[in-house]
Amino acid sequence: MSDVNSVALPTVRRLPLMLRHIQEHIAAGDGFVSSSLLAKELQMDPILVRKALAATGVVGIPRLGFPARELERSILAFLGWDSMTDAVLCGVGNMGRALLGYQGFEQYGLRIVAAFDIDPDLIGKRINRIEVHAMRRMKQLIQKMTVRIGILTVPADVAQAVVDAMISAGICGVWNFTPSKLIVPDGVVVQRVDLASSLAVLSHKLAALSAKQ
Amino acid sequence: MSDVNSVALPTVRRLPLMLRHIQEHIAAGDGFVSSSLLAKELQMDPILVRKALAATGVVGIPRLGFPARELERSILAFLGWDSMTDAVLCGVGNMGRALLGYQGFEQYGLRIVAAFDIDPDLIGKRINRIEVHAMRRMKQLIQKMTVRIGILTVPADVAQAVVDAMISAGICGVWNFTPSKLIVPDGVVVQRVDLASSLAVLSHKLAALSAKQ
Repeated sequence: MSDVNSVALPTVRRLPLMLRHIQEHIAAGDGFVSSSLLAKELQMDPILVRKALAATGVVGIPRLGFPARELERSILAFLGWDSMTDAVLCGVGNMGRALLGYQGFEQYGLRIVAAFDIDPDLIGKRINRIEVHAMRRMKQLIQKMTVRIGILTVPADVAQAVVDAMISAGICGVWNFTPSKLIVPDGVVVQRVDLASSLAVLSHKLAALSAKQ
Repeated sequence: MSDVNSVALPTVRRLPLMLRHIQEHIAAGDGFVSSSLLAKELQMDPILVRKALAATGVVGIPRLGFPARELERSILAFLGWDSMTDAVLCGVGNMGRALLGYQGFEQYGLRIVAAFDIDPDLIGKRINRIEVHAMRRMKQLIQKMTVRIGILTVPADVAQAVVDAMISAGICGVWNFTPSKLIVPDGVVVQRVDLASSLAVLSHKLAALSAKQ
């Protein structure tokens, strides 16, 4: 696949869905997939699909399309999902517990190897086989396990302090499930999942719909 | 607050975070909050904050700022979070189970009142006090309970069929946690949460970072 720095974020966002459709074609026994078929299945502009497929570096064959397995391999490698990346999770509240219990991350190459909390009742427990450790051991364990990704599910008012500790231990990718905006140094990336915002937009769209009717 | 149709989606997306900060000020005993203080706390452009506050319809007082409780009430009402909205959840797999177990939705006015699945081992069970019913009873129960919001956590390949059934039962707001793009009629709104896309962007940013170093 192309140099990672040359691929635009909207293209990256589309890759997981494209990958899933390509994998469905492979499961159905198709050796090749065409960009026009993918565009139709994904209800996506054919130009955007061709752009994303071009970024994989895989060469299509006229009238046949793109070799499906090569596309799959290229996208998996580009996303880093062809190998497992370890992550730690901080904050075993409702959201943290939900994510620890979710078994779907491994298909995306993400394996949560340890969780941290300050609640003595939780420390030493296992959720979905993942042990909860005392927060004060976080730095030492992250360094020992050389983990780069941290999932942040602590209460919003301690989010910045916990992320500071994560970063000082070596975390350079933060998946932020808290509503807090985090301040991080250069060389650290943050990606936020804001369920409250998403729900706000849904509520708003529904209200707007009712107002129109 | 203003007419719901006149407020832009980016403003709506910012409201939950603003609300949380306003609530923190109320908890700290502050009667008023200023737009400049909020802008600083939220690391947001002061113009955007003033725009969002203007949309609440609450009038600020020079040198004092905006009355905090009035702002809170107005935003809660605008988002529909001042009263509980019932929702059903379809698909009690990993993600569905995680969301049923998550206790954080009630603060956003969302109460999951029933879950549906086809697995006989799950039907009749309760997760976080929410009963799992047989999928074939979905239409009848949604109609009986007059629920408008459906949370979709089924496998991607049945997502369209299940959402069609939801809509025929009266659901008009769909919170889509599947990677599928859904086709819905006019009068139905869909809001998608795509964890795979979010993780893809994080992986990509991390890879781009490593490539730069």
